[in-house]
Amino acid sequence: MDITVRPAFDSELPTVAALLSEAFATDPAAHRIVGVRPREQTRTALEDLLEPLIRLYYFPDGEVDVAVAADGEVVGAALWDRPGSSLGLRAQLAMAPSVVGVLGRRLAKTAIQSFRVQAYHPKFPHWYLFMIGARPEAQGAGVGSALLRHGLDRAGDEAAYLEASTPESAALYQRMGFVPLGLTPLPADDDDPELAMWRPGAMPT
Amino acid sequence: MDITVRPAFDSELPTVAALLSEAFATDPAAHRIVGVRPREQTRTALEDLLEPLIRLYYFPDGEVDVAVAADGEVVGAALWDRPGSSLGLRAQLAMAPSVVGVLGRRLAKTAIQSFRVQAYHPKFPHWYLFMIGARPEAQGAGVGSALLRHGLDRAGDEAAYLEASTPESAALYQRMGFVPLGLTPLPADDDDPELAMWRPGAMPT
Repeated sequence: MDITVRPAFDSELPTVAALLSEAFATDPAAHRIVGVRPREQTRTALEDLLEPLIRLYYFPDGEVDVAVAADGEVVGAALWDRPGSSLGLRAQLAMAPSVVGVLGRRLAKTAIQSFRVQAYHPKFPHWYLFMIGARPEAQGAGVGSALLRHGLDRAGDEAAYLEASTPESAALYQRMGFVPLGLTPLPADDDDPELAMWRPGAMPT
Repeated sequence: MDITVRPAFDSELPTVAALLSEAFATDPAAHRIVGVRPREQTRTALEDLLEPLIRLYYFPDGEVDVAVAADGEVVGAALWDRPGSSLGLRAQLAMAPSVVGVLGRRLAKTAIQSFRVQAYHPKFPHWYLFMIGARPEAQGAGVGSALLRHGLDRAGDEAAYLEASTPESAALYQRMGFVPLGLTPLPADDDDPELAMWRPGAMPT
């Protein structure tokens, strides 16, 4: 498949939210955020959260990359936090209605869990790969690798960090230069832990 | 030089404290701990702090490695924290008189700075190389490499972490499998920052 990676246009943000919600609808991480729900409900809840998060935070203050096939269709997307950036108060307030609408009483639990995992991010400046996903029909066609390579090229001499949720993705990330840091803690014992990984930046001169 | 690395005997702990104090007497890190003093005062102050720290913490709860020359002389030493270990309250209380005696009013500043640097340690389990040094006459003879290799062999599949205070030592650590994490913050702007480095553990299976 002939894939081009470029920044998303404003008009593509709903497509990005829909694509990533579809890709993560059966992911354990999604269930930890929105609660265990049937697949279609999980997908809808994720989309209701992701749409404002992308529009209010990742598009203006982070990076929203799309992988585009030769016919122009968006077949994959990735969301990156820039080094040192974090969801500002204004975006949090603007997102609050969506968050409460989707999460309701899970809000506190999700916030606590988000804080716990954040505490495991290395304190050193790094790019953070928050989400990456491909359309089901484009999976295995190198979409993930192309998106990742684009993000790492942009990071250049700067470090990058992510949490791998499956052994297969961890192996891909390792081939792209990531090394393991350790397993992230999870709220429930029956969840599979995620592997935190680090792509080192350049040695300082 | 024919070097053997092994755990220190109880009777060698004063030698280890003296050797490391000598090796660090002109190190910026020593001045940050005990204040800028003439070389001999720095060495003495370091030794007064290190002796109880090694006896009460590193010997029972960490690892005290010595590099021994063919004639039996201790020519280098390294202090490691085991994964998950930290200076317990009992050892802190036992050390308090020495700390106050040496540091006096610098105590609060040193404690705060220690806390700040600790916050930069990755939260994932790791061995921490607290100090490593060689006798002046044995430097450049592979003592540091031998001590480091011994510690990394013991760490095995587990990760290791350290802060490199010079570009030369950072280059040595890189050859031994460490990757850069980033520069640690320092209290004073005119200090050279240290480079935090990570030797990844094995990928989880």
